[in-house]
Amino acid sequence: MMLDFFSEIKDDLSYIEAQLRGVVTDSHTTLGDAADHLFAAGGKRLRPAFAVFSARFGRYDLQKVAPLAVAVELIHMATLVHDDLVDGGLIRRGRPTVQAVWGNRVAIWTGDMLFARAIEIIAGYAEPVVSKRIAATCMEVCTGEFAQAKASFNPHQSLRGYLGRIRSKTAVLIAAASELGALVCGAPRIVSKALGQYGLAVGMAFQVVDDVLDLIADERVLGKATGGDIREGIATLPVIYVLRRNGKGHDRLKEILCAREKGESDISEAIRIVEEEGGVSYSLGVARRFVTKAQRALRALPDIPSRQKLDAIAEFVVERRF
Amino acid sequence: MMLDFFSEIKDDLSYIEAQLRGVVTDSHTTLGDAADHLFAAGGKRLRPAFAVFSARFGRYDLQKVAPLAVAVELIHMATLVHDDLVDGGLIRRGRPTVQAVWGNRVAIWTGDMLFARAIEIIAGYAEPVVSKRIAATCMEVCTGEFAQAKASFNPHQSLRGYLGRIRSKTAVLIAAASELGALVCGAPRIVSKALGQYGLAVGMAFQVVDDVLDLIADERVLGKATGGDIREGIATLPVIYVLRRNGKGHDRLKEILCAREKGESDISEAIRIVEEEGGVSYSLGVARRFVTKAQRALRALPDIPSRQKLDAIAEFVVERRF
Repeated sequence: MMLDFFSEIKDDLSYIEAQLRGVVTDSHTTLGDAADHLFAAGGKRLRPAFAVFSARFGRYDLQKVAPLAVAVELIHMATLVHDDLVDGGLIRRGRPTVQAVWGNRVAIWTGDMLFARAIEIIAGYAEPVVSKRIAATCMEVCTGEFAQAKASFNPHQSLRGYLGRIRSKTAVLIAAASELGALVCGAPRIVSKALGQYGLAVGMAFQVVDDVLDLIADERVLGKATGGDIREGIATLPVIYVLRRNGKGHDRLKEILCAREKGESDISEAIRIVEEEGGVSYSLGVARRFVTKAQRALRALPDIPSRQKLDAIAEFVVERRF
Repeated sequence: MMLDFFSEIKDDLSYIEAQLRGVVTDSHTTLGDAADHLFAAGGKRLRPAFAVFSARFGRYDLQKVAPLAVAVELIHMATLVHDDLVDGGLIRRGRPTVQAVWGNRVAIWTGDMLFARAIEIIAGYAEPVVSKRIAATCMEVCTGEFAQAKASFNPHQSLRGYLGRIRSKTAVLIAAASELGALVCGAPRIVSKALGQYGLAVGMAFQVVDDVLDLIADERVLGKATGGDIREGIATLPVIYVLRRNGKGHDRLKEILCAREKGESDISEAIRIVEEEGGVSYSLGVARRFVTKAQRALRALPDIPSRQKLDAIAEFVVERRF
């Protein structure tokens, strides 16, 4: 899947895609089959795109930015593999997950290998700030996922707690891709910092919209069943909004969220309550504010074509239906 | 648990133990409870000890070697957490595993956080060789675990395949601890290389003995039930030896190994077959040869007190009963 506004960097993304396949399959044939599986499912490759567009604010050099782009996508893939496993998820992007096909054990070590490979690639950068930042980012991502796991099946969630978790699990990695893309190509510190702020805000919007789509997307487009978060006992923003407003359906929503076993009709009912009580429109409003914040961060940057692309991606993040 | 020959470096190991607790619990309170659990179970802290003894071949500086010692132990702990989860193991070192207490999800991200924290600590070293080596080591460890997971429930295992797997999953990390301990304290390259060879050979012996103890240890001393590998369908050296010799009990052992469901009496029977057919004594002989190899590597080193300690640890590795 190639998004329209990536056309300008199409060749560079293809190169990165090839690198991504290469690093995973080349030297470690063991991972080969499991990795093929991951790749067949595709992905938007948003994180590499952020790195590439950001790199254009420096002395653009594909060879400089490609390892970063590959590494951030590998980290993202690693979390998907561990997430699927954790969630007992069997379908992602319309295909069976690694877990479903290869079993639990193989999936755990596949995720670990993707993490390790990313770290190995990043260790190739001469600038110690890159390794440090990526290491801290990995820690943050795991912290966010850990916090989400601990918060599951607990209906007493604050907006602040939710924002902290999605910041950790999603936004910091996108921020690192954006900031470091410029940094490794020698952009001035003020430029890479602004790109980092952009990435953080876009990442927040992205996750909020992801959480909304988990409730209301077209399952054929989403490639998996809706309501996955509710099924797993995870209260995302639309649900938290409704639970905190204490309106109609509040008790029933709470009951369904906290049930360890639930049927498809329970999930549908919970989604209906969330929509009717305004959880979806509230959340899309929050996402919109993050997009505005992201676009504001871009204003500090030189007006090169990439700036418009990043602006358009921010817009896409909140408009998308998949 | 403090081993006798660690008395010389007792204070340094205590400092490292405190660091280990500190880095895990300090900034990330979320991991606190799960981490306490891990620490309560203790551990031999062999890897930190290797790093410390090795560092004495350079200009010894605890501040220089401690982050390395902490990081290698964190990596080891991360693999234990993911191993327990993979194995569905509920007891390790006589205590419930993280999984049993906190649930699957939390355990996955706990392991990931331990990995990430190790990488973060290592990123603090100015020498890029340290980051590169540790990253490659993490990749290797995961590759070994992955290969073991893929080889489970398959009785057609070669000695060579087994040795490759334990080299990856165990020996390279001990080798990295030994080699880098000297390196970060500025020992000559020839010295750190010899220590790396020592670590690799000791690591091989250590894992072979671990696999033997999984069959014949006193369960009270081991802290978990024997036969865990057979239960999980993992053919270790003693089993591979018997399966390849095609002697008495061969078919029955194969059947038990490959069964997805097995009772305690099946496990006991398999262990008896392995012992009777000489799998244990053969394996201890292999371990002994690795110990001799490790001790030979030490001869290239200056005759300082640490050299005798490393010699004694190699001896302990094959003599130990836990």
